Amino acid sequence: MAKTAELSRVCVDGRRLYRSLAELARVGAYRDEATALRGVNRLALTEADGRGRRLVVGWFRRAGLHVAVDRIGNVYARREGAEPALAPVLFGSHIDSVPTAGAFDGCLGVLGALEVVRTLGENRIRTRRPLVIGFFTEEEGCRFGTDMLGSAVATGRIPLAKAYALRDRAGLAVVDELRKIGFLGPRDVRAVRPHAYVECHIEQGPILRRRGAEIGVVSGVQAISWREVLFEGRAAHAGTTPMDLRADAGLAAARLMVEVRRLAESDGRGAGLRGTVGSLRLEPNMVNVVGGRATCTVDLRHPSDARLAGAERRLDSFLRRLGRQDGVGVTWRQTARTPYVPFDERVQAAVARAADRLGLRAEAIVSGAGHDAQEWSRLCKTAMIFVPGEYDGISHNPRELSTPKQCADGANVLLEVVRELAEEP
Amino acid sequence: MAKTAELSRVCVDGRRLYRSLAELARVGAYRDEATALRGVNRLALTEADGRGRRLVVGWFRRAGLHVAVDRIGNVYARREGAEPALAPVLFGSHIDSVPTAGAFDGCLGVLGALEVVRTLGENRIRTRRPLVIGFFTEEEGCRFGTDMLGSAVATGRIPLAKAYALRDRAGLAVVDELRKIGFLGPRDVRAVRPHAYVECHIEQGPILRRRGAEIGVVSGVQAISWREVLFEGRAAHAGTTPMDLRADAGLAAARLMVEVRRLAESDGRGAGLRGTVGSLRLEPNMVNVVGGRATCTVDLRHPSDARLAGAERRLDSFLRRLGRQDGVGVTWRQTARTPYVPFDERVQAAVARAADRLGLRAEAIVSGAGHDAQEWSRLCKTAMIFVPGEYDGISHNPRELSTPKQCADGANVLLEVVRELAEEP
Repeated sequence: MAKTAELSRVCVDGRRLYRSLAELARVGAYRDEATALRGVNRLALTEADGRGRRLVVGWFRRAGLHVAVDRIGNVYARREGAEPALAPVLFGSHIDSVPTAGAFDGCLGVLGALEVVRTLGENRIRTRRPLVIGFFTEEEGCRFGTDMLGSAVATGRIPLAKAYALRDRAGLAVVDELRKIGFLGPRDVRAVRPHAYVECHIEQGPILRRRGAEIGVVSGVQAISWREVLFEGRAAHAGTTPMDLRADAGLAAARLMVEVRRLAESDGRGAGLRGTVGSLRLEPNMVNVVGGRATCTVDLRHPSDARLAGAERRLDSFLRRLGRQDGVGVTWRQTARTPYVPFDERVQAAVARAADRLGLRAEAIVSGAGHDAQEWSRLCKTAMIFVPGEYDGISHNPRELSTPKQCADGANVLLEVVRELAEEP
Repeated sequence: MAKTAELSRVCVDGRRLYRSLAELARVGAYRDEATALRGVNRLALTEADGRGRRLVVGWFRRAGLHVAVDRIGNVYARREGAEPALAPVLFGSHIDSVPTAGAFDGCLGVLGALEVVRTLGENRIRTRRPLVIGFFTEEEGCRFGTDMLGSAVATGRIPLAKAYALRDRAGLAVVDELRKIGFLGPRDVRAVRPHAYVECHIEQGPILRRRGAEIGVVSGVQAISWREVLFEGRAAHAGTTPMDLRADAGLAAARLMVEVRRLAESDGRGAGLRGTVGSLRLEPNMVNVVGGRATCTVDLRHPSDARLAGAERRLDSFLRRLGRQDGVGVTWRQTARTPYVPFDERVQAAVARAADRLGLRAEAIVSGAGHDAQEWSRLCKTAMIFVPGEYDGISHNPRELSTPKQCADGANVLLEVVRELAEEP
């Protein structure tokens, strides 16, 4: 078995990687009115997603990989190892997008993986374990309402039948849409049992840039709590209703928004509690009518499960008090709840070592967003490599931008880590 | 000239009035899902408004009145006086409605006036001055965006050409919609120069009921300030963006909502400042995205022009401070501003005397809502008669309800006041 230090030093072709990202971004391109930029709209299992998939599958085949599609549309591209019976190293991400996307979210992980395999091929480097690039169906959850869908099915969290039955807003089911774009594959969804999983991804936030780091060693994905809160007051005439006789549902929602910020700020800066009320719907929503009904969401995240639960309890008390004080009905339901997902410390150490060998400044970081990696972490040792983004890491937006250097850095670290993992016994 | 005390005592037929209200409410009726009640949707100049107009015009004609329609669709029904050359007493209101209305808003003023004339006819009572019942186009402002449109044109505040050119959301113009329903009349909009104007209307609020009053003597219409405030922050990922790097437009809007309530409450209870943020639109309005843009309205009202202006100035300072503190852009524009409209003290006294003669408990009240009467007050001495409503005076809602007794009380006071004004030299 080759020791890490003994691996020959090779580097990816950053320009080729960037050209591939740009070419994939032309599939599903649209002109974004808000930014006057070209954006990407490649919602999962749409015709555009189908074209994107075929483009990438063509690249996989030209790189000499064996491509298989499973029954939930996950695509696996295998490069044989010296010992084919060993469990493979799996690495990849997703190519589906939100409706107003840029070129990097997900795609960097998939095309960075392709670039790793191209580089190994050109340098005639054989790994001990097989390598498998994967890209997974409906990571964004924008179309069928469940994010990380493909990887969740592949790793057993969501049954295939349940995934098949999910429908989009037009009533179209996952299984039919898979068939329509030609990606309802024959392979068992549980067929891949990796030795390890690694995913390279844009940070989608400002932290690395602000700290002057070039690589993020992701320690885990923070715990997430989503709620929908409904306030029921009384719609009333803004001119004729005295202030002390109002039950203003909009005001109650506003007080919640202010409290969520206060809670998050009192938890300290940096990697503490994050709290967001991103969505609010007022009814009847007229200038001269006191709000009768307000529906809003609360998104709370914390790297500590216990402290997230504590924040939820404090919010519960606040909401009950608020209902009594403002004379409005307050009800809420949990719409999502995932615990903290820690990544494997050995793989994190491998990422840090690789960055170090490449002379890149690395920092530990907690992922604020969910990723396919958190699903695979149930089956095998897993970690992620983050690269910084410009403009405070704006993402899910056509302005999303990581430079050629940033993308190449991520792919080079991925190359190193995959090679190291692939030599493990 | 007859003295007030010498007028023979007659009373309206309350049951007939209530039947007329119910019959008119069937025009434009719909089943309201929210309340499971029958509501009224008779937006101005729609086909339903046309049918409602024809029904009421038919009643006017059967009551022996001469009906004329002016060029903005205002309808005038004249009962000749003993001295036809004297300026008439004008009384009425409107029959157009908001899309989710009850049976009383506006209609009580028009059908109460009809009931007054029916009663005078049955009792063979002749007045010295002519009586004119008026109902006015688009009082609600819900369709073409300008409330009190017909009375504003008749009293010279809005030029006819400007009114004609107003369009609804479908792009249909007032002039074309008037023609379509057959109410583009020939009469000069400025033809009516009344001796006095009186309007009976539901209070649309809780004050009279809570004070145990049966009649409201309306002293004026409070000053109104409407603004639209735009907050521009940065849309950002709720999971990946640290709290201290956010520019949350939704949070800024929430802070404004809380401040508007604080301002209003610090102005004292009762007839002080009323402040409402009734409308808020967040963008992109997603659970996991920090609000990038928030647009909300502020509705401020006060019986004192000076104190309303003071509240506006305090809000200006607050908004500037808020923009700096939260790091968001804040801009606003005034969308409406009307000063306090005082009603005529002699007509108010006549209303109070009439209530007293009828044994009804009357209280002075400031109107929180705008009414046609405020437009007519520019041309002649004017006042309003309010009657209480059940359910805290809920209005613009199918639950809107004034009892047969409450409606008859209002019409009886109207009868007395109109008779008194009509005998004036």
